[in-house]
Amino acid sequence: MKEGGIGSEKIIRRKSDGTLEYQPDDLTIEEPLEIRVGGKVLATTMRTPGRDEELAAGFLVSEALIRQRAEITRISATHENTVVVEVAPGVKLKLRSAQRFGTISSSCGICGKTGIEAIRQNFPGIAATDVRIDVERLLAFPGRLRRQQGDFARTGGIHAAGIFDLNGNSQIVREDIGRHNAVDKAIGRAFLDGLLPLGQHLLLVSGRASFEIMQKALAAGIPIIAAVSAPSTLAVNFARESNQTLIGFLRPPSFNIYSHIERVEIERS
Amino acid sequence: MKEGGIGSEKIIRRKSDGTLEYQPDDLTIEEPLEIRVGGKVLATTMRTPGRDEELAAGFLVSEALIRQRAEITRISATHENTVVVEVAPGVKLKLRSAQRFGTISSSCGICGKTGIEAIRQNFPGIAATDVRIDVERLLAFPGRLRRQQGDFARTGGIHAAGIFDLNGNSQIVREDIGRHNAVDKAIGRAFLDGLLPLGQHLLLVSGRASFEIMQKALAAGIPIIAAVSAPSTLAVNFARESNQTLIGFLRPPSFNIYSHIERVEIERS
Repeated sequence: MKEGGIGSEKIIRRKSDGTLEYQPDDLTIEEPLEIRVGGKVLATTMRTPGRDEELAAGFLVSEALIRQRAEITRISATHENTVVVEVAPGVKLKLRSAQRFGTISSSCGICGKTGIEAIRQNFPGIAATDVRIDVERLLAFPGRLRRQQGDFARTGGIHAAGIFDLNGNSQIVREDIGRHNAVDKAIGRAFLDGLLPLGQHLLLVSGRASFEIMQKALAAGIPIIAAVSAPSTLAVNFARESNQTLIGFLRPPSFNIYSHIERVEIERS
Repeated sequence: MKEGGIGSEKIIRRKSDGTLEYQPDDLTIEEPLEIRVGGKVLATTMRTPGRDEELAAGFLVSEALIRQRAEITRISATHENTVVVEVAPGVKLKLRSAQRFGTISSSCGICGKTGIEAIRQNFPGIAATDVRIDVERLLAFPGRLRRQQGDFARTGGIHAAGIFDLNGNSQIVREDIGRHNAVDKAIGRAFLDGLLPLGQHLLLVSGRASFEIMQKALAAGIPIIAAVSAPSTLAVNFARESNQTLIGFLRPPSFNIYSHIERVEIERS
């Protein structure tokens, strides 16, 4: 195992001239992580090892199980592939709502919620603010995200998520084999540092924007979300209702705006 | 809503010359699907509508909840975004193992399984067979998959999975916003048609190969799995243990072989 969640394997490659060669190949590491809260296993996720505390924190925030930094007293990756979360006295996690994970959830016969209600949390929409993003700055974010990734990541084996201060002063970039995990890690880092809500920030994801990516951003209070690839219909609807600006296909010099264009400062020539 | 899981939205596009235009844009539809078994909600997944019976069937097979076609007496998308599964008298689903879905699972305080054991099913490995794939045929599969997809799909908003007969006689190609769902739909179709195990077939996915893609293929008895992008470390390990041939970066004329090369008939010049 090498740093940065990359493993190396000897593989056989067929080259374009039809000949074969044995060579080492870099692969993204995928291993299960068990998230324990109060002595119980809350969830198991497949993820790229590293930043496990951030992943757990971001997951708890996205699931509306934890809202304030002070509710977590300790969070530590104690054993291999296990992260243990300890909550403050009196904090009770609504574990029923934690029965949904990733892009599919189980009602487990207890929850009783159905359809989108089983998956949607009730985070308040972004409050009306005068936050704005300059187009030139927006167009620079994909390059900044890529520069934070390694050569390997750029070849496509791993997803990236970046949280950028709209003034260009700070950034958190995280990678994972799962795109939800990359977002959880970035949001979890900000949460652990007491930075939520991120009302003056933008979230950029290296792939597509789904409903769940939008909901995670909303949990963190992020008003502007940009994706290098396409959003889904539900992501667009969610953004419109939640007062989030959603930008897709951010591939300089072009991009699409799907909702709340008023936050994008476009020079009208 | 248009056919094929595509919706259209009016968006604002910044073109490469910096000017703006309003234009219609095609988006992949993402909506929740509720899978009900025996009157209870088993799972809710975000998916692209269509082929919901296949998705539910493939999911049940991949989760080792259903093994024989005769165990399902009826499967129908009765309401919008709901699919109802009826099982034969005497069939009891081991619902504890159904607490894992997608790439993350909940122990829900009941299951007690931990780590990879919470996620891994105990499907038998592929039996030793003399199944072989010819390189020229292998190199033709990505083109066949793309030709089954629409123009929109090729632009990247949707994942595809194809099951191909190694003799080139038949194929099942399915699309979905979620790559696990696309695989579930393809496997579900084959299951509903009584075709499992697919011992003379290849599964091709348009993106990456994760642990779960490999496990779904194993549930269907598929000996050869090919991915257009990278596999993860765990996918490679799983393939080696399960006697599956795993091919990655299948981008003609080149590709990588990660496990069980003996099934690939490479002309030695």
